[in-house]
Amino acid sequence: MPELRRDPVIGRWVIISTERAKRPSDFNIEHGEEPEIECPFCEGHEKKTPTEIFAIRKPGTKKDSPGWNVRVVPSIAPKFKIEGDLDRCGVGMYDVMNNIGAHEVILESSRHLTDIYQLSELEIQDVINTSIYRISELEKDIRFKYCLLFKNHGLKAGGSMKTKHLRSQLIATPVTPTRVKEELRGSRVYFEYKERCVFCDIIRQEIETGARIIMETKTMVAIAPFASRFPFEIWIMPKVHRADFMNIQADEIKDLANVLKTIFAKLSKALNDPPYNYMLHTAPFRRAKRPGYWHTIEEDYHWHIEVMPRITQVAGFEWGSGFYINPTPPEEAAKYLREVTL
Amino acid sequence: MPELRRDPVIGRWVIISTERAKRPSDFNIEHGEEPEIECPFCEGHEKKTPTEIFAIRKPGTKKDSPGWNVRVVPSIAPKFKIEGDLDRCGVGMYDVMNNIGAHEVILESSRHLTDIYQLSELEIQDVINTSIYRISELEKDIRFKYCLLFKNHGLKAGGSMKTKHLRSQLIATPVTPTRVKEELRGSRVYFEYKERCVFCDIIRQEIETGARIIMETKTMVAIAPFASRFPFEIWIMPKVHRADFMNIQADEIKDLANVLKTIFAKLSKALNDPPYNYMLHTAPFRRAKRPGYWHTIEEDYHWHIEVMPRITQVAGFEWGSGFYINPTPPEEAAKYLREVTL
Repeated sequence: MPELRRDPVIGRWVIISTERAKRPSDFNIEHGEEPEIECPFCEGHEKKTPTEIFAIRKPGTKKDSPGWNVRVVPSIAPKFKIEGDLDRCGVGMYDVMNNIGAHEVILESSRHLTDIYQLSELEIQDVINTSIYRISELEKDIRFKYCLLFKNHGLKAGGSMKTKHLRSQLIATPVTPTRVKEELRGSRVYFEYKERCVFCDIIRQEIETGARIIMETKTMVAIAPFASRFPFEIWIMPKVHRADFMNIQADEIKDLANVLKTIFAKLSKALNDPPYNYMLHTAPFRRAKRPGYWHTIEEDYHWHIEVMPRITQVAGFEWGSGFYINPTPPEEAAKYLREVTL
Repeated sequence: MPELRRDPVIGRWVIISTERAKRPSDFNIEHGEEPEIECPFCEGHEKKTPTEIFAIRKPGTKKDSPGWNVRVVPSIAPKFKIEGDLDRCGVGMYDVMNNIGAHEVILESSRHLTDIYQLSELEIQDVINTSIYRISELEKDIRFKYCLLFKNHGLKAGGSMKTKHLRSQLIATPVTPTRVKEELRGSRVYFEYKERCVFCDIIRQEIETGARIIMETKTMVAIAPFASRFPFEIWIMPKVHRADFMNIQADEIKDLANVLKTIFAKLSKALNDPPYNYMLHTAPFRRAKRPGYWHTIEEDYHWHIEVMPRITQVAGFEWGSGFYINPTPPEEAAKYLREVTL
């Protein structure tokens, strides 16, 4: 019998089809061809990008020249502009803001790789450390309220037509995004009632029941969430309560690199290199005191990474209702991913 | 200079790219081929669908036989099941419900047409009246809280691979969808502050400024909303304040038929038959009294139809943040659609 399941954080309902469940082989993943043009993100082509903001480089190598492991450059098609003062105004009843923000691209390898599992764990640690450094720098800019770290892998996930070179993106925004606000509200309401972090409760229950665990290390856990919106959706969470990704500890970075390498290798093997997005959900910058509340975002929020394979079509019903229909029960997705051998 | 614009109802922010604005010819609309199979929805093939729930028929014709204009049948792949009692339960910390609901398909023509503008205005009125009748019937079932009326046009909008036959869908659900709740909350908060309906204010301002008006009749207006998420997004609203679509008046039905025919003909011509979804947003069934509020949903909500052409890719940034990036300013979309000659 199909079920309606409620996401415990946001409260959105998902229809899980337990009959005629879709298995990995039921999804038909199409791939575009690798473009023929010279990749602007490979080592040796540093002049083809805007000048670098940061890089992890071999000693003695110069900015915008070969010799790097991870390199951060401004986006050539930025969604936000870095210069200018924040300016909010009303236009009649409407509200407008100039779109001040930062948009950076993290080139995760100097080689022409296309998925993160192709890196070594040490290289992935470099990528994580680079993200942490750049977010901490962007946090210093008082115009910004939030920094989004995300990846678009594959054309159907919004990836570029021009090159598949392995990279993620950072966007710092002058407002806290709606989706983040919904989560902050949901986890605040849960804490209000239970006096516990909703994500900590999820982790505890998932480890206890085990059915939706994909991978567990000493400090991190990867699960197929109970109310998964998409087939093979994955959440990666630190086991110790931390609201802000910026407070990640050295052993967690090591474990996260391990989890990312394993999870994306499994996903790629199980679903034949599916398009996917992932996104870091973390506490906003400059978390205001909340008058009238006895608890803080530090207490009630919990950072995590959401991975969304883009292998089903989101139709009008989903868009208009906020209901999702997921043809693959998360228990089966987790079991399948646990059993993939690498 | 690109702008960040805030939707006045939900509060979501949209990035409107005013530089390098995309014009209709910039979107590359691909079409799948018309399938070869015999369409199960055409007149004469009545036995290929489940038995009809309702039809507008020529006098003397029999159920499940030719002679109809509009015909309603149960979905052959229902998202919800009609039989059973509503059953909510907890699974550990999670909430589950069996997915009781109704899922009906409204066959909008007995001829093999594919877009609503190909109908005459009188035929579209039949379609509207059928929707009203079916929603009113579903409202009688006390298990249902909401009824979604929507259309998936084209493969990229979640349309079927099997046939393009003109149809819309009705789904009655045992919970109020998240997206509807967000709108109800937004319009309630606005009313709380302004003592006016936010949609009435939008209509007043749009008619005054005119730049985003696509079409206006005596009782209805079609606009490109200020914070359009998608290029050529369209909202159709009744000018007189009405929370519930079920209270639509005869002259409004006539005008709505006119607006639907014109808008979709223009959209199809401007964008070469783009995939689109549309969705009716209306007040929920059995609107509970809201203790602690001095105003009701009747006062603060306003039904409307949202049309979303699916011609841009929604990437990780949008999914994770709830920010949308729209490369076509609504003022230009409205101007373009106003000027399309039919």
